[in-house]
Amino acid sequence: MTRWFLYHTAEDPFAFPVGPGSLKLRLFVQNGQQLTCTVIHSDRYDSPGSEIPLPMERIGSAGAYEIHEAVLPSVTGKCRYLFHVMNPAGEYLWYGERGIAENREHAGSFQYAYMHQPEAVKIPSWSQDAVVYQIYPSSYNGGNLKGILDKIPYLQQLGITAMYMTPIFESPSEHKYNTSDYYKVDPTFGTTADLRAVVDQAHHHGIRVLLDAVFNHAGDTFFAFRDVLEHGESSRYKDWFLIHSYPVVQTPSPNYETFGKAEAHMPKLNMDNPEVADYMMEVSKHWVREAGIDGWRLDVANEVSHKFWTRFRRELKAEFPELLLIGEIMHGSGPWLRGDQFDGGMNYVLRDAVLEFFAEQSTGPVRFMEQVIHQEAFCNDQANAAMFQLLGSHDTLRFLTACKQGGRGWNHEETAMYRMRLAVFFQMTYIGMPMIYYGDEVGMEGATDPHCRRPMVWREQEQNSTLHAWYTRLIGLRKKYEVLRKGSFRPWFTDETRNVLGYVRSSGQEKIGLVINNSPNRYHLEVDRFRSGTPELTDLLTGTTICNNDRLVVELEPFGCLMLH
Amino acid sequence: MTRWFLYHTAEDPFAFPVGPGSLKLRLFVQNGQQLTCTVIHSDRYDSPGSEIPLPMERIGSAGAYEIHEAVLPSVTGKCRYLFHVMNPAGEYLWYGERGIAENREHAGSFQYAYMHQPEAVKIPSWSQDAVVYQIYPSSYNGGNLKGILDKIPYLQQLGITAMYMTPIFESPSEHKYNTSDYYKVDPTFGTTADLRAVVDQAHHHGIRVLLDAVFNHAGDTFFAFRDVLEHGESSRYKDWFLIHSYPVVQTPSPNYETFGKAEAHMPKLNMDNPEVADYMMEVSKHWVREAGIDGWRLDVANEVSHKFWTRFRRELKAEFPELLLIGEIMHGSGPWLRGDQFDGGMNYVLRDAVLEFFAEQSTGPVRFMEQVIHQEAFCNDQANAAMFQLLGSHDTLRFLTACKQGGRGWNHEETAMYRMRLAVFFQMTYIGMPMIYYGDEVGMEGATDPHCRRPMVWREQEQNSTLHAWYTRLIGLRKKYEVLRKGSFRPWFTDETRNVLGYVRSSGQEKIGLVINNSPNRYHLEVDRFRSGTPELTDLLTGTTICNNDRLVVELEPFGCLMLH
Repeated sequence: MTRWFLYHTAEDPFAFPVGPGSLKLRLFVQNGQQLTCTVIHSDRYDSPGSEIPLPMERIGSAGAYEIHEAVLPSVTGKCRYLFHVMNPAGEYLWYGERGIAENREHAGSFQYAYMHQPEAVKIPSWSQDAVVYQIYPSSYNGGNLKGILDKIPYLQQLGITAMYMTPIFESPSEHKYNTSDYYKVDPTFGTTADLRAVVDQAHHHGIRVLLDAVFNHAGDTFFAFRDVLEHGESSRYKDWFLIHSYPVVQTPSPNYETFGKAEAHMPKLNMDNPEVADYMMEVSKHWVREAGIDGWRLDVANEVSHKFWTRFRRELKAEFPELLLIGEIMHGSGPWLRGDQFDGGMNYVLRDAVLEFFAEQSTGPVRFMEQVIHQEAFCNDQANAAMFQLLGSHDTLRFLTACKQGGRGWNHEETAMYRMRLAVFFQMTYIGMPMIYYGDEVGMEGATDPHCRRPMVWREQEQNSTLHAWYTRLIGLRKKYEVLRKGSFRPWFTDETRNVLGYVRSSGQEKIGLVINNSPNRYHLEVDRFRSGTPELTDLLTGTTICNNDRLVVELEPFGCLMLH
Repeated sequence: MTRWFLYHTAEDPFAFPVGPGSLKLRLFVQNGQQLTCTVIHSDRYDSPGSEIPLPMERIGSAGAYEIHEAVLPSVTGKCRYLFHVMNPAGEYLWYGERGIAENREHAGSFQYAYMHQPEAVKIPSWSQDAVVYQIYPSSYNGGNLKGILDKIPYLQQLGITAMYMTPIFESPSEHKYNTSDYYKVDPTFGTTADLRAVVDQAHHHGIRVLLDAVFNHAGDTFFAFRDVLEHGESSRYKDWFLIHSYPVVQTPSPNYETFGKAEAHMPKLNMDNPEVADYMMEVSKHWVREAGIDGWRLDVANEVSHKFWTRFRRELKAEFPELLLIGEIMHGSGPWLRGDQFDGGMNYVLRDAVLEFFAEQSTGPVRFMEQVIHQEAFCNDQANAAMFQLLGSHDTLRFLTACKQGGRGWNHEETAMYRMRLAVFFQMTYIGMPMIYYGDEVGMEGATDPHCRRPMVWREQEQNSTLHAWYTRLIGLRKKYEVLRKGSFRPWFTDETRNVLGYVRSSGQEKIGLVINNSPNRYHLEVDRFRSGTPELTDLLTGTTICNNDRLVVELEPFGCLMLH
């Protein structure tokens, strides 16, 4: 008998509470075997033989694995379970804590000992409805907070409900990631009063505000580091940093730990020193109290210890339960998103997949969908719902530029805009919080830093109004249909040859089918109206009703898309 | 090309620091493909192309998977890596954060963003040398602490270096798991002064003392629960428990959460209530300060929230860094042993494997070794080193009884003792802390509770002195050879037909080979002296030197064992 490979462990993201008495189980299953999975479960204190079978749902392929899931109901919250996996020929295996076995007893059982409700990950109630906009303050409008304030109505019109600004605290650089003073708004940008005004005005327009917290490193102009530079080993701040030897030197290369590779002007903070941790905890509380901000985006979060972040969440959420915490982790952010650190991350892993499929066109629908499923599978549902789903940021080339550079075949300069539109369509119909990098909505271009950080284009004749309208329309639809914000995401179909794919968002009886034609050719989509149980379909983008005998047939334009309700 | 299944994630227990600049990586690999694994790594900020290959070691088979490991050196602690896996035909796959792929770019890389030294799991410095003895106070000697004190020299003679007592605080039951007063030694057992005397005397004899903390539930005689029984909804302690309705009733079935299934006399504590958590934190600190104990064993640890245990570790380790924390988790305890909760667990999962192989003889050497490797693979090295490796406890039938009940074939009453001896041999030559359940060392028998809790046999004529000597000799050897305590564990060979297996403990050049003949037949073991590079071998059990031409040949008695140095 083939020993199919399976993987599960009774902890997040393979087992996690999703509500009172509901434990979601996720199982990785070797791909391509058409395996049917069942979870057999009971209360941990029930005697063997009282187990109940529950069929698992195949979510989709993540490449080498398929993901299967089930939501296990439990009155007592004390769960014991094992998996039964069978192929179409009726051959089967058992899988429990003791391994994969042909013999049920050899497999043992998994145990999720007790479902503590406080351990069910809680994200801010507003975050799942959010559409986020990232602003690089130096380049937005007048290069200051007053300028940003003036544009809040613009953001509201676009449909934005949350804005995230890169650092605004005093710093000698334009990007301000090398902080001089964590307690002072940079004078170029304005004052604390200006910040408060931005937050108030934003709130007035239904927009939440997130700031950028840089706790991995300070600037070399930070008072504590200046003291170390001046007093060396006798500085009372020497243990605020990770100094290798004295005297401290910055050139030719720093003899202390820094951000990145020897960035002398960004000395790494010793966040494991309780004094430094206390200092940054105070900073993070100060600005919530002082300016009423709604969240923090945590810079280089992956290089600060988990220990600090668990304290950070514990203390901040105790005082501000609705504060949103987003970690900047450019790789898989699962280990920070188990419920004890951040709500979500900046999803660069998803962006890579989107970039390859839509912009570079280096992958097809099958691999794209696999990558989407793959990155979802390493986080619990709540974390996936709290992801900043971005197409680009101040640290990447702009998506439209990527579309122009990528692609093959005819006329790709012209089709770049179509590809951008499709990527935005995907972004606005996927789970999590779509995050728009300022200017993307009006067709701004730019390679990586510094080009992606150029001033916002405000002159209407330089803006791409069609693209802007596309963003506005999609955001509007996302806001109108709750299922696009909160429904589950499931692959529907992939047509690798024709470069077309479909997926479904659903919640109870509510269901929206999304179809993307990622090719320069027309595509005919047929939906069996009886199998789908749908008498007619409406494309929410155009309002067109599709109704045609026993099959629903609809034509997609080159680079077209559908939102079928 | 076959898509071999692989599993890794850049977090504990698949990636964890084992020392300054040393990151252990663990990879699960589909079994039986003779795959060679290499990890390709670099600093996260180095440009692609600067990666260095590092061969991985195949640790052994865990059933469906093989475990491969490597210790990755990193100066900066910022690691980027991916795996290359190749079969003997030269076919290969890449495996990174984005999945398993034939194409290296498609695989992406894993990132272990930063190795924080405080995140390297620290266990008490004394624990890796410990040999632990479990006492059930009601049944040990005179049923009180004075009686236990009197037997400390006996424990020292046996070679014990740590003792763990089941609960000693005031409670109406014999087992005392339903606590009335967490601040009072049960009068049957003695006083606080008696406890202090036991601890002092134990310390004087080089023995550490652990107590049992029952924080999942209290007794129904606990003051707070009595108050709830009396005052119902108006009790100020009502939120200390999980009450379903009022008035609170205990019969016919309790209308509040309890330990197990409706154990009315054991109401579950609401440890998510900060007031209750504070109370138990104080209790746990009180006894360390008051009596100088060296550790806590945490009862039903798996049903108390992770949130409480992270606080528990944080606060206790801050004040008492050498305190040993052991969770009672009868299934896989990995999720509690990632460095932020317990040092180790009571390893019932290993016991199951030992029981099946040695006592029941229901499994052979291959499956036994697979199960040993399997349970190791779900914990980091430090947690594996801090496990209580038990053959039995107050919650199981005694191991010798299991040996008598199990087994097949000739004369199994007589061979039961041999099988017990082999299990003890394995226990004393394996990693972690061997834990002896009182009386096992003198051949006590007994089925599960209450029979396994019978009074200790002290009359010499009723004790099995041969078994006692065996324990003493093995503990002595464990103490003499550091490699038996701190060396790595690797499978050496399994002979499924003859029911014989070997394994190796090693540390640097120091190496001890252990061989177990789990059958009633003699066995000839041959060691190629050139391949092994060993001119001669000494059996540490007998002192016999083995030296014979170009092969080292040694005969094992039925149920015999060897400790080859």
